[in-house]
Amino acid sequence: MYTSLQITSSEYQSRAARLLEHIKGQQLGGVVLFDNFHITYLTGFIFIPTERPMAFAMNASGERVLFVPRLELEHAKAEAQVERVESYLEYPGDPHPMRQFAEILQKLEIRDLIGADNVGYPWILGYQGPTLSSLTGCEIVNVNPFVEHQMAIKSEAEIALIRESVKWGNLAHRLLQKYTRVGANEVEVSMRASNEATLAMIATLGSLYRSGSMWSDGAEAGYRGQIGRNAAIPHSLTTNATFLPGDVLVTGANAPVWGYNSEVERTMVIGEPSADQRKFFEHMKAAQETAFDALRPGAKCSDVDHAVRAYFEKYDLMPYWRHHSGHSIGLRYHEGPFLDSGDNTVLEPGMVFTVEPGLYVPDLGGFRHSDTVVITENGLEILTYYPRDLASLTISSQ
Amino acid sequence: MYTSLQITSSEYQSRAARLLEHIKGQQLGGVVLFDNFHITYLTGFIFIPTERPMAFAMNASGERVLFVPRLELEHAKAEAQVERVESYLEYPGDPHPMRQFAEILQKLEIRDLIGADNVGYPWILGYQGPTLSSLTGCEIVNVNPFVEHQMAIKSEAEIALIRESVKWGNLAHRLLQKYTRVGANEVEVSMRASNEATLAMIATLGSLYRSGSMWSDGAEAGYRGQIGRNAAIPHSLTTNATFLPGDVLVTGANAPVWGYNSEVERTMVIGEPSADQRKFFEHMKAAQETAFDALRPGAKCSDVDHAVRAYFEKYDLMPYWRHHSGHSIGLRYHEGPFLDSGDNTVLEPGMVFTVEPGLYVPDLGGFRHSDTVVITENGLEILTYYPRDLASLTISSQ
Repeated sequence: MYTSLQITSSEYQSRAARLLEHIKGQQLGGVVLFDNFHITYLTGFIFIPTERPMAFAMNASGERVLFVPRLELEHAKAEAQVERVESYLEYPGDPHPMRQFAEILQKLEIRDLIGADNVGYPWILGYQGPTLSSLTGCEIVNVNPFVEHQMAIKSEAEIALIRESVKWGNLAHRLLQKYTRVGANEVEVSMRASNEATLAMIATLGSLYRSGSMWSDGAEAGYRGQIGRNAAIPHSLTTNATFLPGDVLVTGANAPVWGYNSEVERTMVIGEPSADQRKFFEHMKAAQETAFDALRPGAKCSDVDHAVRAYFEKYDLMPYWRHHSGHSIGLRYHEGPFLDSGDNTVLEPGMVFTVEPGLYVPDLGGFRHSDTVVITENGLEILTYYPRDLASLTISSQ
Repeated sequence: MYTSLQITSSEYQSRAARLLEHIKGQQLGGVVLFDNFHITYLTGFIFIPTERPMAFAMNASGERVLFVPRLELEHAKAEAQVERVESYLEYPGDPHPMRQFAEILQKLEIRDLIGADNVGYPWILGYQGPTLSSLTGCEIVNVNPFVEHQMAIKSEAEIALIRESVKWGNLAHRLLQKYTRVGANEVEVSMRASNEATLAMIATLGSLYRSGSMWSDGAEAGYRGQIGRNAAIPHSLTTNATFLPGDVLVTGANAPVWGYNSEVERTMVIGEPSADQRKFFEHMKAAQETAFDALRPGAKCSDVDHAVRAYFEKYDLMPYWRHHSGHSIGLRYHEGPFLDSGDNTVLEPGMVFTVEPGLYVPDLGGFRHSDTVVITENGLEILTYYPRDLASLTISSQ
């Protein structure tokens, strides 16, 4: 047996066993999952979701079936940890593929009360089709809270993949900072940093590495348009800009590892920081530390966000507030629960969050660090380790 | 007024005017759109969809409102072609942001019969919330067929962006082929080609260029794991593989331009092609030409797929069939209508498709070209122009 970073077969079995317990506990006829991340979580099958519907079904005997288009049959058989893969010819097709899926559910004796994560296959890239209830005539109950909670508590193996992701995100970020200079183009710098970090990563990890992502083949670091005055817009998109002296920059780096993500973001300044830049940077950093202090098992997600907002209010910073304090991260780069004043989920060991309160100042820029942390038995561990202080994040304008 | 590649303000106005005609014609109280591509199509606002709900609303007087999280307020105000942007604090928040949206709909007098593209904000990245019908108590009718048909017929300006995209995808593909050689790693080759093509593109187009994509900053070409025997799996993911003599490769290249995509894919062979490789390559090429011949205004999407399947059947190729003949492309890299035997949509001038019948041979590899074409008044124009013949696509194994 060769060494591997991949999640083991026995871990997929125990994930399935927990879902089966839920089916039995709730007296469901079975469960149907449409969400591609739910399918990956339960089966290990990483794929490109398209307009062609796919679904995972488990009956009350624990039998697991994956329903895929013909296109994905060999791929699913090779990789999905299920008892059986069933395929349909094509979408839209005639008859609609979901008719065939309804027959599979009948054969699996998944009926009466069916747990599902959505009303039907989600409408992406133009997909249209019938709901699960209209297909089966059965009552559908929402199993999202169960599956999402299961995914929110990361195992040791999942945390190990996130730790590996953090390392290569750190390298990509280090190179991003190194190559960022006045007059350079953001796309050029981002590509160079991402490219070199990825080559180093795949040479280092060799066959241990797969991104497990349809969007990325390796480590990535960039600005996504958060440059200078644009940085006051948190979710900007790349604008093909060049760096100027005095720019406030907000970065982001990640490296998907077998599908698992991490996030490190830093605020950097080009040239000697102004008094205003210093002020907002230090407030942002203190607000993030306020969040770190509030993150512990037994506290609620909302407690963390309330603590951050109290800090903002104390220093009259609410005009610069734009978003909550963070989100969960794992197979998805954003997932619940959220560090939001409206989310009263209790923090538990194994939950992994980004911690990223931000300040956005018109005509000056955005100020946001993001670190990836895991809740432990006693408090939290900050998995990302890129320097957080202004001196380390100041880029010479010479 | 500076020159620009971007879709003009007047084109957004005419898109909105056509939606308003539909509202009036169907006697709707108004329309609500949740899909991020629908919002971009109607408003020009390109953004990163997240768990934070967003929606576009238009009432029967033609008043357009975009509903966004506080995070996106300045961004939306700067870019969205609407009468008004309304924002909510944060998701999940308390109360749920969709309560505030329901009040906005009341003020807009969008009631009774509401057209919508989905039952509610779609469940992505962990979002959960009420349906539009439960929020408003109104009857909801599906406006997808109208909006999707509107998007399917590309304007001259949209086709111009797709033409621009084709050029830079072509460059990325040319570099991909140039750097692919025995012993190289697919990720290294893909990054080098994408990187150089992107630098050339942004230097050439300068401020005319924005990717308008959350996933890509420029031109991209790669293999996505479709290498050697793996190439028999159409939707494989990157496996960090190295090239070997005798490999059959399936490529893909694109360059989003102001959000618009094109697709060119080619089958390449490393070393002198074997008799089997030649046979399947030439059948694949002939099947694609069969599809080209069937694409004309007035024919149906299904006619094209039937013609391709007839070719497959004539030459006993159905064991190697895995998927339909192509899909529409535009703001999305896959969208409807589909060149599928179950899709009876009539072809109209301005529709843009990928044409890509494929053959997948176990233990040998996959064979697929994809070209991007536009239906014209008289037939079709093939927008992609990368060589399609085997001699041009054979890579030396020396």
